[in-house]
Amino acid sequence: MNMKAIIVERQNGANALKLTDLPAPEPAAGELRVRVRAAAVNRTDIVTREGRSGYAVNPILGVEIAGIVEQAEEGSGFAPGDRVMGLVNGGGYAEYAVMPADRAMKIPAGYTFEQAAAVPEVFLTAYQTLYWIGRLQPGESVLIHAGASGVGTAAIQLAKTLSRAKVIVTAGSREKLDFCENLGADVLINYKEQSFEKEVLAATDGQGVDLILDFVGADYWDKNLESVKKEGRWVLIGILGGIQVEQVNLFALMSKCVQLTGTLLTPRSDDYKARLTADFVREVMPHMAAGEIKPIVDTVFPLEEAMSAQTHMEENRNIGKIVLSVAE
Amino acid sequence: MNMKAIIVERQNGANALKLTDLPAPEPAAGELRVRVRAAAVNRTDIVTREGRSGYAVNPILGVEIAGIVEQAEEGSGFAPGDRVMGLVNGGGYAEYAVMPADRAMKIPAGYTFEQAAAVPEVFLTAYQTLYWIGRLQPGESVLIHAGASGVGTAAIQLAKTLSRAKVIVTAGSREKLDFCENLGADVLINYKEQSFEKEVLAATDGQGVDLILDFVGADYWDKNLESVKKEGRWVLIGILGGIQVEQVNLFALMSKCVQLTGTLLTPRSDDYKARLTADFVREVMPHMAAGEIKPIVDTVFPLEEAMSAQTHMEENRNIGKIVLSVAE
Repeated sequence: MNMKAIIVERQNGANALKLTDLPAPEPAAGELRVRVRAAAVNRTDIVTREGRSGYAVNPILGVEIAGIVEQAEEGSGFAPGDRVMGLVNGGGYAEYAVMPADRAMKIPAGYTFEQAAAVPEVFLTAYQTLYWIGRLQPGESVLIHAGASGVGTAAIQLAKTLSRAKVIVTAGSREKLDFCENLGADVLINYKEQSFEKEVLAATDGQGVDLILDFVGADYWDKNLESVKKEGRWVLIGILGGIQVEQVNLFALMSKCVQLTGTLLTPRSDDYKARLTADFVREVMPHMAAGEIKPIVDTVFPLEEAMSAQTHMEENRNIGKIVLSVAE
Repeated sequence: MNMKAIIVERQNGANALKLTDLPAPEPAAGELRVRVRAAAVNRTDIVTREGRSGYAVNPILGVEIAGIVEQAEEGSGFAPGDRVMGLVNGGGYAEYAVMPADRAMKIPAGYTFEQAAAVPEVFLTAYQTLYWIGRLQPGESVLIHAGASGVGTAAIQLAKTLSRAKVIVTAGSREKLDFCENLGADVLINYKEQSFEKEVLAATDGQGVDLILDFVGADYWDKNLESVKKEGRWVLIGILGGIQVEQVNLFALMSKCVQLTGTLLTPRSDDYKARLTADFVREVMPHMAAGEIKPIVDTVFPLEEAMSAQTHMEENRNIGKIVLSVAE
């Protein structure tokens, strides 16, 4: 059986997305076969399109989906007809995908497929960075850069709902900051108009924050170092502001006793993703079912317009997730 | 009452050590007064002498001592005449010092004061970096740079005795490597003759180590990044090879999901040091009392020759600790 899928192809000297026909994937042991109804766009997809990821193995783009189970092993906990969402090892931008059953999550009642596709990558990433890596404690302070991004909007909600944290966000427009405030952010910083490190120190009695979620990288290196509290944690999860730091002063990291952790979710092992998913289902899904935490969908594009969807993300115009809808 | 003590004084345009007479310190609430019998030399003392530490508050150098309790509060767990060792907030290079009682450790039977003074800073640092920060698990692999240094010799023993870890060390001479081997190190690398990153990969099936204790910093940055396993931990605890790293590639930290933690023990809070000491007494002191783990003393200088002792350390000639003996 063939299906529509989006792959990367070299055209006119640059990498472009191409809609093509490919055989639908067959599930291996432990996997579900899912009729994809929506897939979401992530920066890792753009990095893969540009040929820079180094870890993508599936020629079809896309690391998260929502859809309907078509085939499931007995004892997997799922059955044909179940509405599921979760991370896939590539292959999301397509009509069919396979997914390890221990990574599938049942979609909460009342969610559309587009909303469900907006959950896995950003919420699991936000949960991983805030809790597994960042060890956020109740009442601590956290600086979330790119507060209106997919991971940003997820992280604000998690930090407020699970930890009553003091949430400080940066974003580049009034509209984005207002959105963050509605999600619960306590301190709003427009990085285009304010020095965020000064605002962070002012908002934390000069101490700095306990935790930074850094999607920016090089451009913010020195300012993040100023913004983090002594013995604080700093999680590097994106490089929107560049890869290369010109000069790193190691003594500053040492004398401030800072813990800096680089992380990406996509290249993690299957086992890691399964454990993270299980922990997330236990700790966060009840809050989603109760409507206290919700996925934020910015725009929905049809699968065929995947390139427009990625361009929309590259222009940083989105608030929340960009989703691809796959026709029935 | 006056006492002899070593302070820093500007002489001929450079900072030098000076033996002087100062009033003996009076213990504050919760502190012991100790007649110092030995103090050990640490790199942090040299940094302080050079006026670069930024956190030293005591004009008298020295962050660890061994001696005899002269004065103790009721309920402190100590009494006059007890032989104790532990970290002090400066003031170690002197005849008398004060020490928070919750940081004092009873000296094991059979230890000389010189051996006891060689315990606190390096063993607490090695324990902190391997376990509190590095979370070393049984059977994991650890790369210990400067294996024959004070912290290195402590870390080798802890990693082998407490965790049966695979211990890979670097050092700059056959004599130092032989010493490391006698302490239990499994893989010996002469960094002057071998590419340590290649040897590390060869010794770990190309995976890299779970944990690096890095005393070197800038010079080894890229090689350490190559030597650490995916999702590994890297603890930055010294900058013998320079402070400034040029052109740091953040994507490499992210895609390898590395945790880099800078740390120093001296600028940590009193509470941190007390908790670390308590954990160390519980987990490690029984092994010291049983002779399975032992302090390594390189050379003993009289207090008056503190400058010679520091020079000896600056020349990297020592195997284990350099100790100052204080006359009765």
